[in-house]
Amino acid sequence: MPRAGAEARAEQLATLARIRHQRLASDEVGRLLDQTTAETNGLPYESEEASLVRVARREWEKARRVPAELRGEITRASSLAEHGWVEAKRRSDFAAFLPLLARNIELKLRYATCFEGFEGFEQTYDPLLDDFEPGVSTADVAALLAELRDGIQPLAAELADRSGAIDDSCLHGRFPLDAQARLAREVVEALPLERDAWRLDPTVHPFATAIAPSDIRITTRFDESYVGTALWSVIHEAGHGLYENGIAPELRRSPLARPVSLGFHESQSRMWENWVGRGRPFVEWLHPRLRRIFPGQFGVVDPEALYRAANKVQPSLIRVEADQVTYNLHIVMRFELELELFEGRLELADLPEAWNARIAEYLGVDVPDDAHGVLQDVHWAAGSFGYFPTYSLGNLIAAQIWDAARGSLPDLDGQIAGGEFVPLRDWLRERLYRHGAKYTPKEMIERLVGGPIDVAPYLRQLRERAAEIYGV
Amino acid sequence: MPRAGAEARAEQLATLARIRHQRLASDEVGRLLDQTTAETNGLPYESEEASLVRVARREWEKARRVPAELRGEITRASSLAEHGWVEAKRRSDFAAFLPLLARNIELKLRYATCFEGFEGFEQTYDPLLDDFEPGVSTADVAALLAELRDGIQPLAAELADRSGAIDDSCLHGRFPLDAQARLAREVVEALPLERDAWRLDPTVHPFATAIAPSDIRITTRFDESYVGTALWSVIHEAGHGLYENGIAPELRRSPLARPVSLGFHESQSRMWENWVGRGRPFVEWLHPRLRRIFPGQFGVVDPEALYRAANKVQPSLIRVEADQVTYNLHIVMRFELELELFEGRLELADLPEAWNARIAEYLGVDVPDDAHGVLQDVHWAAGSFGYFPTYSLGNLIAAQIWDAARGSLPDLDGQIAGGEFVPLRDWLRERLYRHGAKYTPKEMIERLVGGPIDVAPYLRQLRERAAEIYGV
Repeated sequence: MPRAGAEARAEQLATLARIRHQRLASDEVGRLLDQTTAETNGLPYESEEASLVRVARREWEKARRVPAELRGEITRASSLAEHGWVEAKRRSDFAAFLPLLARNIELKLRYATCFEGFEGFEQTYDPLLDDFEPGVSTADVAALLAELRDGIQPLAAELADRSGAIDDSCLHGRFPLDAQARLAREVVEALPLERDAWRLDPTVHPFATAIAPSDIRITTRFDESYVGTALWSVIHEAGHGLYENGIAPELRRSPLARPVSLGFHESQSRMWENWVGRGRPFVEWLHPRLRRIFPGQFGVVDPEALYRAANKVQPSLIRVEADQVTYNLHIVMRFELELELFEGRLELADLPEAWNARIAEYLGVDVPDDAHGVLQDVHWAAGSFGYFPTYSLGNLIAAQIWDAARGSLPDLDGQIAGGEFVPLRDWLRERLYRHGAKYTPKEMIERLVGGPIDVAPYLRQLRERAAEIYGV
Repeated sequence: MPRAGAEARAEQLATLARIRHQRLASDEVGRLLDQTTAETNGLPYESEEASLVRVARREWEKARRVPAELRGEITRASSLAEHGWVEAKRRSDFAAFLPLLARNIELKLRYATCFEGFEGFEQTYDPLLDDFEPGVSTADVAALLAELRDGIQPLAAELADRSGAIDDSCLHGRFPLDAQARLAREVVEALPLERDAWRLDPTVHPFATAIAPSDIRITTRFDESYVGTALWSVIHEAGHGLYENGIAPELRRSPLARPVSLGFHESQSRMWENWVGRGRPFVEWLHPRLRRIFPGQFGVVDPEALYRAANKVQPSLIRVEADQVTYNLHIVMRFELELELFEGRLELADLPEAWNARIAEYLGVDVPDDAHGVLQDVHWAAGSFGYFPTYSLGNLIAAQIWDAARGSLPDLDGQIAGGEFVPLRDWLRERLYRHGAKYTPKEMIERLVGGPIDVAPYLRQLRERAAEIYGV
């Protein structure tokens, strides 16, 4: 967007948000819900009709609490803050960003107060989190992330000391962009997205989005000096795409036609990226392809060396470039800071200092400036509070699902090594993807693994891989 | 879009069209209009308030005639037809496209019948035309385009016989795409769009669109073997952008924040492309730039040769590649065929034959297949009937405005030759751009030139240029 368009864009988005909210929160929707509730009484909980009414009703009840003007203003302020953030980050100028961030937080605090007495909400942060992870409470997340932090910190420290032992130089060098684009396309084509239902395009910040389950957009960026960026980011985004692509046709164009939650969405990008994509069987599949496309770099690299390079752990400053272990510490500290801000235990002006102290404590690295610290992510500018923790929840859920899939598919490793990804996808479709948002996160994890979200499987898997690679 | 997304896209667009229509045609808007009409009584006709109410009321009155379901269905059918057209064109298969086109026409006929008795509408085609050219009737357009056809045909035939006399080989050859992109950017930067309020990006089919007057998107395509494509298409699209960019800030986000009509919109793209961009003064400004960027091709070409090459006239098959003279014959025959279809004088199955006969008659060229004939344009697939004639109206209006501007700006040629485009833009802003849609096409042309839309100035200008270049 040209810079002069920022203000008009903010107004346009605010108008759309306000209109959408008015329609959702209308009396008419309430009447329709009452009517359909009567009609779906007695239908099984998991029937499409009962699920549709149940999910829509909760969304309507939440929307009724929030004035349309506030909804529009949140959208307007965050759109303006996003544009201000671009400039503030460029100049590493937190002071310039502060009033925009303060406005976002003020509005989200007003938003949170709309939910006083709402069933299941006990803390200010609960309604913020609930928008991304329905039915999951701040207390749930705080307990999980504290346990995760306490498990990750010693592992990260131990591996950091040994990161010199891993040679990942094969992933660095000069990788012409057109060859990387061919590689990325070959990888996505191998993953079992429906034919003619996706596109892969270059972008600045990789993302995946579903215009519809039959219209998946995967984007990636290419770094000429590091082939890992495009490779694993494409698998990550394709994982998001596989989920959306697998939502049952009969749910399409309904409130159920979306993943269970952001945590579950992220579980699929992480599972395909890290447990499939950086696993030994996939690396065996990948190796001849890398060697064919980049014979100079991979001619003398064996699959085992590639596997080790793909799993190097090393603390760093930037979340989106972090390895799969230390990544969680970036998330935990953001969650902790958000909570402190929303509970009034941290002044906004003190945020950069608190950020830098936490990074030093958890990751042992120094933040040189705010552009590489508190200003690195767009999320807070975009008004997304309660969003970051879903990234680590995704890691936890991914590990639990991965255990379950491996248990059900005894030949999974062999299938992946042979480029057969359909059995895994179909297993996930049947149990997770096709159901859309019929179930809450708590219901879905229970259905999938017979228990709640749990930190242990993830830590165990990380330690197993670390043992293989680092011998610790 | 991936192919599998077409159906979902059609549904999404239909939903948006239906919701927009319901809101526009609502009783509530009617009440607001009644209230504001009372408030604006006595205000001058050209005041913002009175104009806003007047323009919004007519839009509301038209919308009230049309069921929201029909509006949605028109959108859905045309979205599906667009995707079917891509495939049908690729295979040059009119039979495959016929049912989709038949559906579009059937729905537009139903649409037209909604307006029985509506003030000013006398023929079936009137309401279709009115959506693009408010207040201009089929009879008006039929008379103008018949006169235009009768004036253009002999001129085109005469110039076709002499087209061998014009050497435009300097525009053909090998023009690296990155150098063309630099040229295109340099040209748009020279045209006086507001700073930071536009982008220029590559595309398949060039267009310009305004997300807001402060957010102008210009796109172009590059043909490695012909530098003219990017060059004049960029000036054309920038002309559209200059108009939208000049709409007064106080009209923004209102029904007045758009050009008078498509004819007026096109008048500005055509005027900047053909009367500015292919004129001798601009070519003098352009020449050293072309020589600097493409020294091999333009090193030995003088400005006069470039001017002649830029204005070569030669009948051809494809409208979007046609020169500025024969272009009008492409438009006239489309308008005539549309009218015959909507008045029941032509069977849809006979359309390709009628097309080919008309092209042979008007342009003296043979149509080898439907891909290069009746299937070449997306417009009918997109459900746009009544749209094509606005292209030629744009040519007529451009010529009239150009005469007026030259009369008011005695040093216009010198300014353009010196790269000073601001005086022309400001003249246009003051009289045309800033007013948005306050005036109807008939009112605006009267204000600008003191008379109605007229064919004579355009024919005179074309003949003058032909005389200079061809000596006829």
